[in-house]
Amino acid sequence: MSGVLYGVGLGPGDPELMTLRAHRLISQAAVVAYPTLAGGESFARSIAADIIPAGADEIVMDVPMTTAREPAQAAYDKGAAEIAAALESGRDVVCLCEGDPFFYGSFMYLFARLSDRYEVQVVPGVTSITTCAARAGMPLAARNERLTVLPGPLPEDELRARIDGAESVAIMKVGRHLPKIRSVIDALGLTDHAMYIERASLPDEVVCPLADAPEKAPYFSMILLTKGADPWL
Amino acid sequence: MSGVLYGVGLGPGDPELMTLRAHRLISQAAVVAYPTLAGGESFARSIAADIIPAGADEIVMDVPMTTAREPAQAAYDKGAAEIAAALESGRDVVCLCEGDPFFYGSFMYLFARLSDRYEVQVVPGVTSITTCAARAGMPLAARNERLTVLPGPLPEDELRARIDGAESVAIMKVGRHLPKIRSVIDALGLTDHAMYIERASLPDEVVCPLADAPEKAPYFSMILLTKGADPWL
Repeated sequence: MSGVLYGVGLGPGDPELMTLRAHRLISQAAVVAYPTLAGGESFARSIAADIIPAGADEIVMDVPMTTAREPAQAAYDKGAAEIAAALESGRDVVCLCEGDPFFYGSFMYLFARLSDRYEVQVVPGVTSITTCAARAGMPLAARNERLTVLPGPLPEDELRARIDGAESVAIMKVGRHLPKIRSVIDALGLTDHAMYIERASLPDEVVCPLADAPEKAPYFSMILLTKGADPWL
Repeated sequence: MSGVLYGVGLGPGDPELMTLRAHRLISQAAVVAYPTLAGGESFARSIAADIIPAGADEIVMDVPMTTAREPAQAAYDKGAAEIAAALESGRDVVCLCEGDPFFYGSFMYLFARLSDRYEVQVVPGVTSITTCAARAGMPLAARNERLTVLPGPLPEDELRARIDGAESVAIMKVGRHLPKIRSVIDALGLTDHAMYIERASLPDEVVCPLADAPEKAPYFSMILLTKGADPWL
């Protein structure tokens, strides 16, 4: 009997925002797996650090920092092979995923490689979008409103076209794209409706109006735009 | 000293998908508040039922089933006044919210009424979108992909315009709008990319291709559309 692969969402960073199921699965794990970026610390592992059993085996997937396709594919191929070997030996593997496994997460690359051969269970997690909304005191969407989620690396023209005419907008992965995004939002006259949030739920969280945002943003930063006052209120 | 109002997301329905913080706050609550719809059972309360302390006071906001504005406003006014009275007496109030409080949730009406006078803390929860994606085995968005969230009650023309040209799409609150949504997706030739999910994470959950969806959908149902195979895989 092969083991089961669990893709477990850990939420935005505060360990208390993980689900009871994530907590149970990790606390009982014999094998955990997680990605690191270019040899750095694993954010996912840091969220779960206090509850990973002392004797658990750890499968580390070191993903190189590059926009080229092949090196990252090779890292996931290698990780998938190590996970498969553990599953073949009858052991379950708990893959640690910051946020939610299927929402801009790398777990989907393991899912694509392994779900046809092994049982895979995906445990959803709290995403950064609703965490940022909670921290900024900005309701995201009500009744028949639309919500658009845009990655910050999109080209300026596309960002402008997608934000113009949208209702609520969440712009993920702001990072080094902050000046470009700021200029788009300024040009649309929406700066007064925008909040900037970085490292939501973590001790060094920043929450402020976009107008007051720092010059440099980390990768885990977001801009939320909402229409403002709700006619139903 | 006034009490604190907590707006607590409970996740999609499976009690094990609530966060550790939600579990802690509810387990220790002296006063809980929640909405019911037209005198029916409260879905939010049912998720938390096993951990609400036996002696807790319960503030029930009965929201009438109507599209008129005033009766619902009156129900939230009354609920807000009862919550304010508890906060004034120095007691904290834990408001139970299915899913996430700021993602198509009624908590935002209480937030609008009370956050200028009292401390309000919003605890994000797992949303139905990522839960449906997990249950359907459909990654929602990767890298620079866009995600569009649309409420099913939108007019047919608007749904068509918003789905056409989108990448991943989540259509919420399908319910009685299923035939209209189906016809839009059929006309766009996207039916083979669409999954139907109802009551995600609950014992009577349904997950199937849209082509096999039942004729009648409950309010808590969703359609997910994704572009399919990812070039990075």
